[in-house]
Amino acid sequence: MNYGIIFYTVGWVLNTEAVCMLLPLVCSVLYKEQLTFMYVICILVCLAFGFALTFKSPKNKTMYAREGFVTVAFSWIALSLFGTVPFMLSGYIPSFADAFFETVSGFTTTGASILNDVEALPHSLLLWRSFTHWIGGMGVLVFLVAIMPLFGGKNMHFLRAESTGASVSKLVPKVRSSSLILYSIYSGLTVLEIILLYLGDIPLFDAVTLAFGTAGTGGFAIRNSGVAEYSTYVQNVITVFMILFGVDFSVYFLILMRKFNLSFRSEEVRGYFAIILISILVISIDCRGLYESLGQNLTHSAFQVASIITTTGYATVDFDKWNELSKTVLLFLMFIGACAGSTGGGIKVSRVLILFKSMFKEIKLCAHPNTVYKVKMTGRFVEHETMRAVNVFAVSYIVIFFASLFLISFDNFNFTTNFSAIAATINNIGPGFDMVGPTRNFSIYSSFSKLVMCFNMLVGRLEIFPMLMLFFPQTWKK
Amino acid sequence: MNYGIIFYTVGWVLNTEAVCMLLPLVCSVLYKEQLTFMYVICILVCLAFGFALTFKSPKNKTMYAREGFVTVAFSWIALSLFGTVPFMLSGYIPSFADAFFETVSGFTTTGASILNDVEALPHSLLLWRSFTHWIGGMGVLVFLVAIMPLFGGKNMHFLRAESTGASVSKLVPKVRSSSLILYSIYSGLTVLEIILLYLGDIPLFDAVTLAFGTAGTGGFAIRNSGVAEYSTYVQNVITVFMILFGVDFSVYFLILMRKFNLSFRSEEVRGYFAIILISILVISIDCRGLYESLGQNLTHSAFQVASIITTTGYATVDFDKWNELSKTVLLFLMFIGACAGSTGGGIKVSRVLILFKSMFKEIKLCAHPNTVYKVKMTGRFVEHETMRAVNVFAVSYIVIFFASLFLISFDNFNFTTNFSAIAATINNIGPGFDMVGPTRNFSIYSSFSKLVMCFNMLVGRLEIFPMLMLFFPQTWKK
Repeated sequence: MNYGIIFYTVGWVLNTEAVCMLLPLVCSVLYKEQLTFMYVICILVCLAFGFALTFKSPKNKTMYAREGFVTVAFSWIALSLFGTVPFMLSGYIPSFADAFFETVSGFTTTGASILNDVEALPHSLLLWRSFTHWIGGMGVLVFLVAIMPLFGGKNMHFLRAESTGASVSKLVPKVRSSSLILYSIYSGLTVLEIILLYLGDIPLFDAVTLAFGTAGTGGFAIRNSGVAEYSTYVQNVITVFMILFGVDFSVYFLILMRKFNLSFRSEEVRGYFAIILISILVISIDCRGLYESLGQNLTHSAFQVASIITTTGYATVDFDKWNELSKTVLLFLMFIGACAGSTGGGIKVSRVLILFKSMFKEIKLCAHPNTVYKVKMTGRFVEHETMRAVNVFAVSYIVIFFASLFLISFDNFNFTTNFSAIAATINNIGPGFDMVGPTRNFSIYSSFSKLVMCFNMLVGRLEIFPMLMLFFPQTWKK
Repeated sequence: MNYGIIFYTVGWVLNTEAVCMLLPLVCSVLYKEQLTFMYVICILVCLAFGFALTFKSPKNKTMYAREGFVTVAFSWIALSLFGTVPFMLSGYIPSFADAFFETVSGFTTTGASILNDVEALPHSLLLWRSFTHWIGGMGVLVFLVAIMPLFGGKNMHFLRAESTGASVSKLVPKVRSSSLILYSIYSGLTVLEIILLYLGDIPLFDAVTLAFGTAGTGGFAIRNSGVAEYSTYVQNVITVFMILFGVDFSVYFLILMRKFNLSFRSEEVRGYFAIILISILVISIDCRGLYESLGQNLTHSAFQVASIITTTGYATVDFDKWNELSKTVLLFLMFIGACAGSTGGGIKVSRVLILFKSMFKEIKLCAHPNTVYKVKMTGRFVEHETMRAVNVFAVSYIVIFFASLFLISFDNFNFTTNFSAIAATINNIGPGFDMVGPTRNFSIYSSFSKLVMCFNMLVGRLEIFPMLMLFFPQTWKK
């Protein structure tokens, strides 16, 4: 194991985090919050560790698969650990387990909170909280690759582990250019959303934090009522952008390249929109009579569907009070998740499609055992390796899901609460049902359960294997 | 598609069912229930259809894979349809959906009931109800193969589809002898249990029905309190036999052949006992203080663990009132199920082991991509075909599970109830949690939901594919 390159990369992650903390620092100056000195300390802490680790560039820069996985896992754990410092140092979240939960929830774009009163937080902390969503959405290592020459070129292993799906390398031959393009699209869409939200007559601060939460498909709100108090216009803008950030970003790249035909071919994206439309239809019929007008009904149905399938987790209504049918639809969306190559979480539409297709293939094989069938996606045959990886992903996912369910059941909350809490964290959504529903939060759980759920959030964001590998002796063997 | 052989086989299944109905007929004579004439009609109805279908032996006796699957599916549907006649004709379960639910639940050895007052039923109907468990436990087609020369030899496809796992063909080279041996072991163990229960000073009728329910891992009780009123001795005897009927029957064959070494080698059976022991340990610790003595605690913990992992579904206590931890353990056992080649349901220990091992293999591959790993079970390499089949089984299982959850959510019961109702039916267990807990029943659901759950029970008993294939056009194509 080449520890040199691992810790060197983690060091640069911490340096980047220090730079990111300039944003809440500036915010605290603007709002005269007297937290400026605290942010200086936070930045110095990050830089101290960052510089120590990056002081000497490692001689051996080879990074094999396992170094890649370990680097990603360590980077995200470090990012979350140092991200807690502003919360703890400011005294707003004094307990480590709580602060770590909140920070992991931020970076992994989950949006599950332990705060009973979000509005008690100063502006700069709220901004830091929402900004973690934006950083985590596209990934900090993707960012490093975009700006630093060292990580360009061959060291692709950790990029593949950090991005959802394997689309980073697909856009253009050069990894560095790909990362740059991705971050440009990401930033462009975010700015566009901020402008559109600001036109809806809300404070700029609200527009920025809401946009950060949407872009990263995170879901931290800055009001106790979530997004319920904003106007229908604002809610609809957020709905549209949540859906947009759940689309595979390579589609936007193809549109920018004017390859419109190719961009509309993706079976995953078409499946994604089909699922959204059907879900809105079912829920709006099931919720008839609940809201003043058909327009209100559609606004709320569409918002909640977009919020859950993209794993954002904003809420305009308390969907925990809906009928069981609508709640079951939302539960499905929690697991399906967004497209691979987007900022959304969950199992991903492409994996769900491949699993369905492999099932159909096997049933055909039962009927006609001597025929050869192959699974296709977007016109291409799916490779055997991909099929196997998807299957093993599904199995590992279920194993971690149920193991976590067991561990948090010690707290003795009911099944609906526990099941939806794990679903909401492993799929990076945020709210669940019942005692962790959209109007409640995760503070009820013990510190132990919170740490279990932190693990789940990281597992979900990094697509299982980087986190899982840390527990296997094979990873650490020579 | 060779419809001739399919309907011919279904005809023999109905003839066999007619013979089986002699048991409740004799019972009704002994108890002077004035239902004798009704049973004669039931038998004549079965025979009328049975004779019509078996009147002419089909010329073409070839049965390919898809004919095999369709035969199994049709046989079990026919068996269940005609099994409802005594319930409906006697007037004790007048609604078809209810009677069908009760009969499917019987034959698939689920043991979920729609009856609010079991004790209102006459002895002969209770006996028929419990007898369906015994018939369904080992399988009616396995029985046909054992007694009829036509089905011996080459037509193995439907046997493989009906039995859990592929162990029928493994015992001895001749299929017919294998089936005979299986039924002998099955009958022998059942008789032994009846004798031991009868020694516990309970009526012979109780001993016989309890033994039928245990042998088939069914779980229909003849008292409203389930098995709670019986003595600790009787409860312990049932615990032991539930566990015994959840073991792969080829282990008993090996013991009979005096190949003791081989019989103890099976990784699945060892895993099965390990899971049972650990579960009893966790639950008895979690339930400390709930019962008078440690003995009582162990009796109840062991009984419930054995009942759920073997998917029997008897209950001595209302486990829905246990802590969430114990309930979560029971939930896991619901899904794990018994050994392949036993009469129990669920996913089966062997499949769970293979899924776990394939996950570990993939994680090792992540760390060392250029190494070759192979999954082993009981010292042998698991073939690629088996791995794929297990993966597709898992995926199909999840798809059917969630589709069913969606369909029954229209009834608007809560998530815990719905989730555990599907878990209890697809795994052939019986009771679930909350509103379908051990002291409640399934009568709350609509007829539509009951039919969905009938499908689930058949899917679970026949291990998914025979039932699923009925819905695919490929099955019916030339």
